[in-house]
Formats: sequence, structure tokens, C-alpha cells
Amino acid sequence: MVKTFESALNLIPATPALVLDLPTVTRNAQKLADYARSHFLRVRPHTKTHKSLKMARLQLDCGAQGLTVAKVGEAEIMAAASSDVLVAYPAIDPPRIQRLARLARTVTVRVAVDSLPGIEALAGAAQAAGTTIGLLVDLDVGYHRTGVQSPAAALELAQRISDLTPALRLDGLFFYPGQIWSAAAQQVAELGRVESLLAETIERWRATGLPVEIVSGGSTPTAYQSHLVPSQTEIRPGTYLFNDMNTVRAGFSVIEECAAAILCTVVSTAVPGKAVIDAGTKTLTSDRNARFPDSGYGCVLEFPAARIARLSEEHGEIEFSQSSHRPRIGDRVTIVPNHICPCINLQDRVWLQQTNGSLEQLEIDTRGRQV
Amino acid sequence: MVKTFESALNLIPATPALVLDLPTVTRNAQKLADYARSHFLRVRPHTKTHKSLKMARLQLDCGAQGLTVAKVGEAEIMAAASSDVLVAYPAIDPPRIQRLARLARTVTVRVAVDSLPGIEALAGAAQAAGTTIGLLVDLDVGYHRTGVQSPAAALELAQRISDLTPALRLDGLFFYPGQIWSAAAQQVAELGRVESLLAETIERWRATGLPVEIVSGGSTPTAYQSHLVPSQTEIRPGTYLFNDMNTVRAGFSVIEECAAAILCTVVSTAVPGKAVIDAGTKTLTSDRNARFPDSGYGCVLEFPAARIARLSEEHGEIEFSQSSHRPRIGDRVTIVPNHICPCINLQDRVWLQQTNGSLEQLEIDTRGRQV
Repeated sequence: MVKTFESALNLIPATPALVLDLPTVTRNAQKLADYARSHFLRVRPHTKTHKSLKMARLQLDCGAQGLTVAKVGEAEIMAAASSDVLVAYPAIDPPRIQRLARLARTVTVRVAVDSLPGIEALAGAAQAAGTTIGLLVDLDVGYHRTGVQSPAAALELAQRISDLTPALRLDGLFFYPGQIWSAAAQQVAELGRVESLLAETIERWRATGLPVEIVSGGSTPTAYQSHLVPSQTEIRPGTYLFNDMNTVRAGFSVIEECAAAILCTVVSTAVPGKAVIDAGTKTLTSDRNARFPDSGYGCVLEFPAARIARLSEEHGEIEFSQSSHRPRIGDRVTIVPNHICPCINLQDRVWLQQTNGSLEQLEIDTRGRQV
Repeated sequence: MVKTFESALNLIPATPALVLDLPTVTRNAQKLADYARSHFLRVRPHTKTHKSLKMARLQLDCGAQGLTVAKVGEAEIMAAASSDVLVAYPAIDPPRIQRLARLARTVTVRVAVDSLPGIEALAGAAQAAGTTIGLLVDLDVGYHRTGVQSPAAALELAQRISDLTPALRLDGLFFYPGQIWSAAAQQVAELGRVESLLAETIERWRATGLPVEIVSGGSTPTAYQSHLVPSQTEIRPGTYLFNDMNTVRAGFSVIEECAAAILCTVVSTAVPGKAVIDAGTKTLTSDRNARFPDSGYGCVLEFPAARIARLSEEHGEIEFSQSSHRPRIGDRVTIVPNHICPCINLQDRVWLQQTNGSLEQLEIDTRGRQV
């Protein structure tokens, strides 16, 4: 059995409790830093995963060059850890862009954009605030969520940004290969197509004299294949720091690299074949597994063959086969969730397990910063 | 189009924002209160839905006789609104039962139980605190989550509780018909089976001289069919106060009875056939619709035919057919989520829209109280 959380399992005063193991977190951060360094890639981790200034500083100490956020409220807080923040999100509405422009007075703020109205709104806000916002043009490389649809469309936005100097500064390209969840070996062809699209876009910009200093991409599933996209200059993985059953079941990590777990107590065994734990969707979330949606809502480390079959808001139902060993009422168990990021977002603070097994509380500084 | 949130849509300073419409909330509370009164049923609303003292007081003002909670942390806070709190949850572990026993010194605390170890643990904690905890025996009526499996097993627990007077007080029976999501007309047979099981259990208790003062049951889907279970004395619905796409699509409410919505901004329309909003799983949750799991992650009131097809953590992708009318980038839209309870739990505070359309902030007092 995986022993990562054994100390916390005994020491935690009450459940459910989210625990991060600092030695595993540090190893995960260092492993990515080493990979990136060996391929001359910069790392700009997405802080949506941990939402914690302490975790951000750990990543920066391992060599990350800046931070990524989704929301403006996250950017404002993460600016205390780094003076170089990328908002990987299409800010368009006045409340958001005005706050970004104010923040850009004191730290380097970059924003990913995919529309002319977005560019013009940001230019107006930056001008009003007397500052400069750096922009990256978001190119859709196959996830089909945001991003312009062609190298020609990317060039059009880049030219408009360039026209709006000095309120805006054209910094380069942005992409998110969120569709790629295949095994590492199978990513060669998929990432080859991404590289072709980027290379064509960059060529068009350079041909018209536009700069492409930053090409920002990547996700946790593609993180260790980033060298297959040589055009990119920086990567923005988030989940890699903790890992979860999404990364384990898809083959991007092993269970020993999971740095986060939910400690639970078995509160009922009245229904045959089941053990009910004190964690439901308000702790584990309803996120199904990305690769195996029917594999249940996480892995019970003490009973890896058992399936967390159904969640209510505060109950989790673990199913056991007729014959199998199972926990008794009152026992504690440890669960690695499918997707750690939204689980962290449910907590105001979590436990951080130190190298010597002792515990300290860690604030989730940007919890619930949805704007 | 439903106009419930029109005022908030214009006045809210930034999105995403969760808005409750007070007139609709009040009508929903009053409607259930009227139904319950006409059937001589008491109402003990489950506060997991709103997690707010102000909403609890509104329910009590409409005649609710006490409150229901899942977790001890919720009980401690809700005790400020009512001196009669039911913990609809099998508390077993020392941290939880010790806090419950302390709370029982100042308010009436009842707990649902389904195990001998649970009963004995609660008795020990109550004795140590010099107080009495009221117990309801949890009987499984078909949801198969918690609850003893037969009237005979319920009698066995009731006798044990009775033996542990005065630390414990046997108050009656508890059930949760969570499996019943069928249309009202089809609930007759299902609730008839529930009534038979309850009646048999009650008969056994009375035959041995045990009291059954409270028979606590119900859910929002069965709330207005509670008269089909004449043995029950009180009902514990939660969602009925706000409603959501679960209650609408299953036919338990109409969209005009939805008192809660998420206001969003369209942040990207770069991908053909889509509009991306600034609300993903960290706002709407990954909860799929209970009756129609493939219907998407909520209903866009301005575009009811459009489907919220995919969520990331902070992005929601609304799909539009080729020809249909669609929002422009920067537009605001209003979404009724599938399941309002976990959405409320993501917010530290929400907006409360008054009868005159003005807005005030409402604290979500028990947000994140998972223990």
C-alpha cells in the first residue's frame, strides 16, 4: 500500500481533511523543473491547482519564471509571490479588465486574447490606467474552447495589438492542447500537428515584422512531451504538482507521485456490500475520471480494488465485492480524488504534511476567487 | 423569457455571481409551509441547500419547527437560528460526537443513527458532557446509502438506545427516499411501499412499549406527496427553497419557481457554434442533471434551446445550432444550474435580489463546513 499519508491519517484531528505531502510536492516540482531545464523551456505553472502563495513560492524556488492564473482575483493575490503573472483567460468585461490594468501598474501582467473586442477593451483600460498590458494571441490547436481558428486570424489580432502600442505590448502566442490525453508515445503525431500550426503562425508574424518572444503552451498530460513542440518557449502545467487519479489512470504519473489526498472516516456500513465515508461531492466533487469515467470518484488507497460508486453531497459510497476485505465503521481511509484542482477549491485551508510527518495548516489563498 | 433575475443582470458589478431572488424564495417557502400545514406535517428544512442563517430564519418564520444539517460544523452555526437541530448524518467519530454533545448542552440536538457503535459512541459523549442527545433510527427505505435494513434491525437499535437513557433519548424514526425521482403520479406505489415499511417498524416499537414521537422523512422530489406516507410526522426537503434544473426537468417545479441563478459573461466566441462563459466547474460544479444526465450543465435562461455542453474549471462552453440566435462577446447571460446546493457551497457570499430589484450581499454562513 502507498504510505504517503500514513502520518496524517493518524494525526489529523477530524475528517474529511485534505492533506498535501510536502516531500512529494517538492519532488514533483523538481522533476518538472529538471525536465524543463534540460530542454531550455521556461515553466509558468498554473496556480489554479493549488491556489496557494506558499505552493507558488515553492514552484518559483524550483526555477519557475512566473505564474499563471485564470481569474483576476487570483492574479491580484499571486502578484505577492511573483511580479510576472499571465492571465490564461479571455478577459473582456469592464470589471475584470479595469482590475487587470490597475495590477499592471505594479507587476508584469500578460493576458491571452482571442477577439478584437477583447483587445480593444484591454487597450482602453490600460490607457486609462496609464500602463501597458502584454498580450498573447490565443490559437486554438484542437481543444476548441477558446482561441482563433487559423494562423491568418492570429496574424490579424497580432497586427491590431501592435497598432495599440504602448497601451498593449504584443508578446507572442498562447495555446492549450487540452484535447491531448493519449499515452506519451501516441502524442508524437498529435503534438507534431500542434507544432506545424504554431510554426506557420510564427512564420507569418515574422514575415510582417511582428515579434513572437513568448510561445506559451502545455498542460500536465503533455508536460513531459513538450520537447515535441520546439516552437514553444514556456509551459503552464498545473496538476503536475500534486497529481490525481486523472494523471494516474491516464499514465502520466504513478500513485506514489500523488501528493494530495482526502482523509475520511467510515460513518456507516449498514447497507450490505458498502462502506459510507464522510466525503461526498462537497469534498471530492462530481468530477468523473477523464480517461475512465466509470471508474468511480477516486481511489481508496487502503482498498484500491473497491469502487467509490456514488456520491451525495456529504456521503461517499464505497462498494466492496462479496468476499473482499473491507473497513469497519469508524475506520479512516485515504482517497486520491479524480481531479485535485476543484477539490482544493472547496477548502479554506488544508493540511501540509512535513518531511518529519508533522502537520501544519496551509491557507488556500485564492479559494473561490471566481471573478 | 423568465424575467426573475433581470434586475440583477443589470446591477451586478462583476460575474460570475450567484443571485437569489427573495420574492421567489419566499413564495417557495410559503408554498411548502401551506402544503405541510394542510396535512398536519411539520417542516424541518435541510439547510445544506442554502447554508445561510438568514434563509433558515425565513423558513422558521414560515412555520418550520426546526432545522436539519448534515455536518456538526453546520449544526453549531445553525443553532443561532433554532434551538432544535437534527443532524441527518451518522456521526460516529470522536471529534464529531464530542462537538455534538457540547452543542446538546444548549440546544435540542437529534442525530440519525444506523449502528450500535454509533449509538454507544454518542451515549459516551453525551454522558461525558452531562447532557442528552435525541436519536432517530435511520431505516433504509430503498436508497441504499445508510440505514438499517429491516424493521427487526430498527427495533434492535431502538431497544439499545432506550437502554442508554438518560444520555440518549429515543425520539423515533428517520428515512430518506432518495431513490424516488419519478413523476408525482408514479410516486403513489413507491411511497406506498415506504409507508408499509414504516408502519411495520412503528408497530414493532409500540408493541414493545417504545415511543415513536417523530418519523422524519422526505426529500424535495417527494415533498408534495408526503401525505402518501401518513406515518411521517415531519419532512426535511432542502432544494425546494430555490429549485434548480434537477427539480425543473424532473417536473417538481417550473422554471419560474427557480429562485437561484448564476449570472455570467460571454468571454469568447472564437470557436464556431460556441459561446464561452466565465463559469465552469468551480462555479456550476460537474453535477449532471439527475433525470437527463446528457442535457448539459444547466439552462441558459436567455437561450433555453442552447446546451452547456462542456465545462472546464473556469470556462463553460455553450453550444448553438448553426442557425440559432446567440449572444455576443461581452453579453451577460443567466444560468439555472442542475443542482443548486453544491453551487451555493462554492460561494462565500451571494447576492440577494429584493422585491424592489435592489441587491444586498448574503453570507453563506456554513460554506465549507465539511466536518
